[in-house]
Amino acid sequence: MKVRVYVSLKNGVLDPQGRAIHHAIEGLGFSGVQDVRAGRLIELDVDDTVTDEALDAMAKQLLANMVIENYRIERVAA
Amino acid sequence: MKVRVYVSLKNGVLDPQGRAIHHAIEGLGFSGVQDVRAGRLIELDVDDTVTDEALDAMAKQLLANMVIENYRIERVAA
Repeated sequence: MKVRVYVSLKNGVLDPQGRAIHHAIEGLGFSGVQDVRAGRLIELDVDDTVTDEALDAMAKQLLANMVIENYRIERVAA
Repeated sequence: MKVRVYVSLKNGVLDPQGRAIHHAIEGLGFSGVQDVRAGRLIELDVDDTVTDEALDAMAKQLLANMVIENYRIERVAA
């Protein structure tokens, strides 16, 4: 079973990577982009026996830095 | 309007970051994880006037490296 974990910076946390992307988008001549935030996407291939609690623990302990980041877990039908 | 761009490595492309995460997950004692792939998530805040074509061009020119990466664009209702 596929699981996707989306990790994004909390509101209010400075995002230099997102700002650099925003700057580059404007440099390429695109208009209408108000803000850019950069995050991570981690795709896991797990056995069906892996519980939501285990996925939650992985995200908290390893995948996201809970001080500055939020995460969202999504199970994808195989 | 919020737009999310998901960038992930194409199949067959070596993913050392994903492998390191996989190794760390096992090191923490979690079992049942078969594979891990690492990607990026870019959240854009755009005007409603920005077309799908413009978003596609941004992804192709800047956000994803088309040689080794795929991207997926998702518009999120505001």
